[in-house]
Amino acid sequence: MLEQMGAAAKQASYQLAVLNSAKKNQALVVIADTLEANSKIILAANEQDVDLAKQNGLSDALIDRLKLTPSRLASIANDVRHVYRLTDPVGQVIDGSLLDNGLNLQRRRVPLGVVGVIYEARPNVTIDVATLCLKTGNAVILRGGKETVNTNQSMVAVIQQALQKCGLPAAAVQSIDNPDRALINELLTLDRYVDMIIPRGGAALQKLCKENATIPVIIGGIGVCHTFVDESADFDKALTIIENAKTQRPSTCNTLETLLVHRSIAAEFLPKLGAKMYSCGVTLHTSPEAMMYLTGAEVNVVQVTDAEYDSEWLSLDLNVKVVAGLDEAIEHIRTHGSAHSDAILTRSLINTNRFVTEVDSAAVYVNASTRFTDGGQFGLGAEVAVSTQKLHARGPMGLEALTTYKWIGYGDDLIRR
Amino acid sequence: MLEQMGAAAKQASYQLAVLNSAKKNQALVVIADTLEANSKIILAANEQDVDLAKQNGLSDALIDRLKLTPSRLASIANDVRHVYRLTDPVGQVIDGSLLDNGLNLQRRRVPLGVVGVIYEARPNVTIDVATLCLKTGNAVILRGGKETVNTNQSMVAVIQQALQKCGLPAAAVQSIDNPDRALINELLTLDRYVDMIIPRGGAALQKLCKENATIPVIIGGIGVCHTFVDESADFDKALTIIENAKTQRPSTCNTLETLLVHRSIAAEFLPKLGAKMYSCGVTLHTSPEAMMYLTGAEVNVVQVTDAEYDSEWLSLDLNVKVVAGLDEAIEHIRTHGSAHSDAILTRSLINTNRFVTEVDSAAVYVNASTRFTDGGQFGLGAEVAVSTQKLHARGPMGLEALTTYKWIGYGDDLIRR
Repeated sequence: MLEQMGAAAKQASYQLAVLNSAKKNQALVVIADTLEANSKIILAANEQDVDLAKQNGLSDALIDRLKLTPSRLASIANDVRHVYRLTDPVGQVIDGSLLDNGLNLQRRRVPLGVVGVIYEARPNVTIDVATLCLKTGNAVILRGGKETVNTNQSMVAVIQQALQKCGLPAAAVQSIDNPDRALINELLTLDRYVDMIIPRGGAALQKLCKENATIPVIIGGIGVCHTFVDESADFDKALTIIENAKTQRPSTCNTLETLLVHRSIAAEFLPKLGAKMYSCGVTLHTSPEAMMYLTGAEVNVVQVTDAEYDSEWLSLDLNVKVVAGLDEAIEHIRTHGSAHSDAILTRSLINTNRFVTEVDSAAVYVNASTRFTDGGQFGLGAEVAVSTQKLHARGPMGLEALTTYKWIGYGDDLIRR
Repeated sequence: MLEQMGAAAKQASYQLAVLNSAKKNQALVVIADTLEANSKIILAANEQDVDLAKQNGLSDALIDRLKLTPSRLASIANDVRHVYRLTDPVGQVIDGSLLDNGLNLQRRRVPLGVVGVIYEARPNVTIDVATLCLKTGNAVILRGGKETVNTNQSMVAVIQQALQKCGLPAAAVQSIDNPDRALINELLTLDRYVDMIIPRGGAALQKLCKENATIPVIIGGIGVCHTFVDESADFDKALTIIENAKTQRPSTCNTLETLLVHRSIAAEFLPKLGAKMYSCGVTLHTSPEAMMYLTGAEVNVVQVTDAEYDSEWLSLDLNVKVVAGLDEAIEHIRTHGSAHSDAILTRSLINTNRFVTEVDSAAVYVNASTRFTDGGQFGLGAEVAVSTQKLHARGPMGLEALTTYKWIGYGDDLIRR
């Protein structure tokens, strides 16, 4: 079945690759309108998923995540209209010149071809990914969470209907509705047809993809993020940034997980931190040294375990460790971080330069919250995923990350000497 | 053993990442000088390899490829001096702006970290890859062909000596000398330390890497290249280009393997092609239809097999197929090509535009030889590999392909609203 799906996607990708932006944008408008026109069908399908989720005892948080309401669906349709307004990177000439050998060489941005996206129970991702791929001339094979099978099926049917209305191939957007996990492995080795795999999910999914894919995979989305409070930091401002980085939206990958505090300020800073975090409802997981300064009733503190330094809390929990200085902070980040987002709070220019050069993460910040690592915040207009690997794209991936380039050489009946 | 090597390479990469170009260039000069100063040791080690190769009955071509002479070694040292003169991409600011949210954001080019390169019995690759990695601030783990173990060992020892002379870590350039193939698989899963794998070898090596690596792999170097002779082509000029693409250096990956000829000119063009190829010593492997026009004594012609359309000749052999027109030519290239280099010979603007848009290869040419696909020819100054995949880098990879970027966000005590 996947073989067929892949072949159809590849054929569709050839058709999409030659479309100009106007044609692709027209399809986006029709998709948004068709989504709204079919809202009853989609909401009914979603209700089935929600009922099943309740029967299966899914948590309220998960159910809320998969639930669609008329206003959520309207907002999804509006997101499609937002994609309409983004600049299409396809066709851009990256560089070019007339070479000494006579070749008139251009490097032109082109679609990747076929993208495979594996994600969880978030119905908005289905539309989001489908439209970003369409905008960049890519065909897409979606594999959403099994909890949203009915919603996804109805949404993809609506998209395909809209595509056909515009004279575009329905196979440009396909979804794997069979929840059998073996199909994920099959998708990961469909290298004859699929050009890139984006796993949007937890560490287990990332690992599965990394180990089994024969197709290039964009690893990302796991954020073990750090903030180092240098000895010269402004305490009040540091506390504001830490509160923002930890509590603004704790379930996100750019949330702060471990705070590293310079030893020379630990005795003065940590009691203030303890009080502030207590008032925000944050539990501190601290090294023994840090705990010495976190006593009293107005602080939630437990001892940190080694494993906690290596994983995401995604909750109102924060590791705290006292370090001897910048060297130990960098060393800790290299050892325990996920190369996602790390910050230094400092007034030292030298330490700033060292931190941004020596910390090898997708995003490094100076006197700013790690929460900024986001396609929208970075001005990319959209976010396909956040990559924590180094090839192709790093950090928030916008539309450009859904493209590659080709070299085009024009000759005047030219041979190589 | 590899675990240790990987950890040492990662540590070395941190030291290399902070070096400025002057410091890296100084090391390149010392490496070139030390190579020349130690030429006797290297040539003696190479002689051991050559003797072993003879005992093992390797072909003359292979022995010639692994053999070093004083002049070849001098030319390798000069290549190092050439790398000195290339522009270092590390530290370049790709883009940046002051965003509405207050963040001063920069995207800065940085080294990848640790690169693993698996290659065959070409001693020049050892120096070539090591110096290109050093120039871009990357540590490298080399795994050369078992036939050149002694040569590589002596060369890497010389490089390490030069690095230490410059106060740089010897682990910046390491080689796996144990010929056990199991170590390749171990290298391919060393994802804690290695950021990218480049396999420089045949289809079997590429497949091994694709299937077993948990590290991003740059697939490439396999060139099933096509040239389509459109009905409006200038015959004489077409024959010159075809001769160049097929015979200038038949063992290279950008050599023409299959010629597609428009049916409307087949009767007139193919006899001329047959005569020309005969005079160049090229054997034609033709479809039955093409063979009808390739009769007489002055032509080497046999019938093509389906499998021959899918693989590289790397020799003075050329597949020839008559096609109904541009559509069938594009379809053939999509089905049988390796997405490396493909050309159209035509006088039609419309067919030119269709060909360059619809043929999804790393390099597409109009009225030029496929032989141009090369880092040197493209003005990149160096060539790390030729990628035929679409992520990260496509076609000839220069120094830039050995880098990634990081996002650096400067805030004035900034939180996300």
